[in-house]
Amino acid sequence: MTTLTPAAPSKNFASTRERVEACLNTFLTRKTADARTDGLAPQMPAVLQGFIASGGKRLRPLLCVAGWQAAGGRGIPESVIRTAAALEMYQAFALIHDDVIDNSAIRRSQPAVHEALARQFANSPDPRHLGVSAAILIGDMALTWSHELFMTADVPADRRAIVATIVDAMREEMHHGQYLDLLSVLQPLEDERTPLTVIRYKTAKYTVERPLQIGAALTGAGPDLLAGLSRFALPLGDAFQLRDDLLGIFGDPALTGKPVLGDLQEGKHTVLMALAARRANPGQRDILERRLGDSALDDDGAAEIIEVIRATGADAEVESMIAARYAEALAVLDSEAFPPDATATLIRIARAAVERDS
Amino acid sequence: MTTLTPAAPSKNFASTRERVEACLNTFLTRKTADARTDGLAPQMPAVLQGFIASGGKRLRPLLCVAGWQAAGGRGIPESVIRTAAALEMYQAFALIHDDVIDNSAIRRSQPAVHEALARQFANSPDPRHLGVSAAILIGDMALTWSHELFMTADVPADRRAIVATIVDAMREEMHHGQYLDLLSVLQPLEDERTPLTVIRYKTAKYTVERPLQIGAALTGAGPDLLAGLSRFALPLGDAFQLRDDLLGIFGDPALTGKPVLGDLQEGKHTVLMALAARRANPGQRDILERRLGDSALDDDGAAEIIEVIRATGADAEVESMIAARYAEALAVLDSEAFPPDATATLIRIARAAVERDS
Repeated sequence: MTTLTPAAPSKNFASTRERVEACLNTFLTRKTADARTDGLAPQMPAVLQGFIASGGKRLRPLLCVAGWQAAGGRGIPESVIRTAAALEMYQAFALIHDDVIDNSAIRRSQPAVHEALARQFANSPDPRHLGVSAAILIGDMALTWSHELFMTADVPADRRAIVATIVDAMREEMHHGQYLDLLSVLQPLEDERTPLTVIRYKTAKYTVERPLQIGAALTGAGPDLLAGLSRFALPLGDAFQLRDDLLGIFGDPALTGKPVLGDLQEGKHTVLMALAARRANPGQRDILERRLGDSALDDDGAAEIIEVIRATGADAEVESMIAARYAEALAVLDSEAFPPDATATLIRIARAAVERDS
Repeated sequence: MTTLTPAAPSKNFASTRERVEACLNTFLTRKTADARTDGLAPQMPAVLQGFIASGGKRLRPLLCVAGWQAAGGRGIPESVIRTAAALEMYQAFALIHDDVIDNSAIRRSQPAVHEALARQFANSPDPRHLGVSAAILIGDMALTWSHELFMTADVPADRRAIVATIVDAMREEMHHGQYLDLLSVLQPLEDERTPLTVIRYKTAKYTVERPLQIGAALTGAGPDLLAGLSRFALPLGDAFQLRDDLLGIFGDPALTGKPVLGDLQEGKHTVLMALAARRANPGQRDILERRLGDSALDDDGAAEIIEVIRATGADAEVESMIAARYAEALAVLDSEAFPPDATATLIRIARAAVERDS
C-alpha cells in the first residue's frame, strides 16, 4: 500500500487506515462464513477482500474522518470508521466496474478483477465473458455491501437520513461522470468542457466533496458547514484529477500501479489532451489523431504523443491549472473557521493530493 | 404490456400499475431535465424511461402492495406506490445487467439495452463494448435511483429502517443467486441442488418474499407477520421460476418476449435440465451434452433437446413440482390470518404466477 505521501507521514492517518481495513476485513470475513453456511459462493466476498487488501490510498475514508473533524467531531468513534469503510467498499465497486468498462487488465500492479477471474475460469467455454460477468456481479455486491455498512453504522436516525441523501447524490454524480467520460471519445478531441465536467463529477464531487460532507453530516453539521467544505473540496478535487491525468502519462508505473500505455491506448479524452489538441499545429494534430486510442500503440508511438504534449506546452498549462486550484482550496481554509487541527489535516491532505507521484 | 393473466383482470391491479408507472415517469422526467440543466447525459434517465415503458408484469410492485394489505394497511398511500416503484426500478437494474451477463440480445421483444445502445454508437470504434459499458452504467444508475425512491418515500424513520434492512437482504440474495447461476455452467448438468438454490435466491426471495415483506414493513408489521408472508412466498416463488424455466423452452416467444433458442444456446443449467440429465439414457445424455450451450444451435438442435426433455418426463416432473409448491403456498394462506381481501389478492397473484403463458 502506498502512504498518502512520504512528505506527510501521520500516525492518525495510519491508525484510521488500519481501523477502516479491520472493519472491512471483519465484515467480509463474516460474509464469507455466511455464504459457506448458506451454500452460496464464498468467492464473492473473498474476491472483494483480496481486492481491497491489494492496495489503495484510502483517500475517501481519510476525507470522511477529516470532514467529521472539520465539523467539530471529537475522537474517531466506530460509527465514523464504519461509514468511512462504506466509502472504501463503494470505491471497490467503482473500480471493478470501471476496469470492465475501460478494458483495463491491470489495477494496483495486479490483474484487474475481471482478468483474474477469467484466468480462474480458464477451462470454461468463454473465460473472458465469464470473468467480466462475475466481476460485474461482484461489483454490484460491493455496492450493496457499501450500503449495508452505511446503514449499520451506529448513527442517530436524523443524521443517517442526511448522510443517505448525500450518499445518493454522490452515487448519481459518479455514474453521470462515468457515463460522460465513456462517451467523451465521441466528442472532438479539443473539447475541454466535457473532460472538465467529467473531472468535476467523477472526481471532485465523488472523491473529495461528498466524503468530506458525509463525515461532517455524521456530527449533525448544517448546510453552511457542508457548503464551506464543498468550496474547499471542488477545486482540490479538480486538481487531484488533473494530477492523475499527468501521472497517467508521465508517472512511474512502478508507483502508480498503472501502465503508461493504458490511457493512451484507450484514447481517453482528458483536459491535458484537449489542451494539446487545441494548441497543436497540423502535424502535431495529425500525430494525436492517428496515435491516440490505437490499441496497438507501442512505446515509440507513446513517445510521439508525449512529445506533442510537451511541445504544445499542454503539460505546463495543466500544472498551472493544478496550482491555481490548489491555491483556491487553501484560500478557502483561510476563510472558513474549521478547528485548527482539522484545518492542519485538510492542508496535509490537499498537499498529498496535489504533490504526489502515485 | 402483458396483463398479469387474462383469467384474473383487476381494476385494482391496473390502477396500482398505472400509479407505479406514473411515479417512475415523473421521477425520470425530472432526472432528464436535471441532467440537461447540469450539462450531463439526459440519455441515462431517458433510456431507463424507455426500458421501463417497454413492458413488464410489475409483479414486484403488485406484491409490495399485497404485502401492505396483508399486514392490514388501508388504502394505497403514495408512500407505498413510491416504494413499489423503487422495486420496479431495481428490477430494471437487474434486467439490464442480466442481459449483459447472459449475452441476451432480446428483451421484451425488443433489442436489449446494451444492444440498442451498441446500434446507436454504430460509428464508434467498438460499438459493442461501448454499448455494454453504457448499459452497465445505466444499470448502476437504476440501482442508485431505486435507492433514492426507497429513501424518499414518506415513511416514518423506524419503519424505513426495517424496510432498508429487508432491501439490503434482498439485494445481497439476488447478487448471490445470480453469481451461483452464472457459475452453474461449471457444475455437472445433473446437479439439481445448485439450480434449486439459484431459484430460491434469485427468484423466490428476490421476486416474491422480499417485495411482500417490504410492503408489510411499511405498516410497521412485526417479525411474525413477515415470517408468515415468507412461508407463503418461498414455495410460490420457486413455482414461479419453475414455470419460467418451462416457458423458456415450451413457451410462445410472441407471448414471453424471449426467443426459445436463448436459454438453450446459453446452456442454462435449470432444474428442468438437471432432471432430464439425471433420467437420460446414454444416447439422450449425449444429445444434452452436445447440444446444450451450443451458441450456434438451430431449431433442429433445439427440437432434439426438447424431445429428450419430453421422453425423460422431466417436464412432467417439473409440472408436478410446480403443483406441489403452489398447493403449499395456498395452504399457508389457509393457516395465516391475513385480511380476507388481502388473501383473495394473494390467491389471484399466486394463480397468475403459476398458470401463465408469458
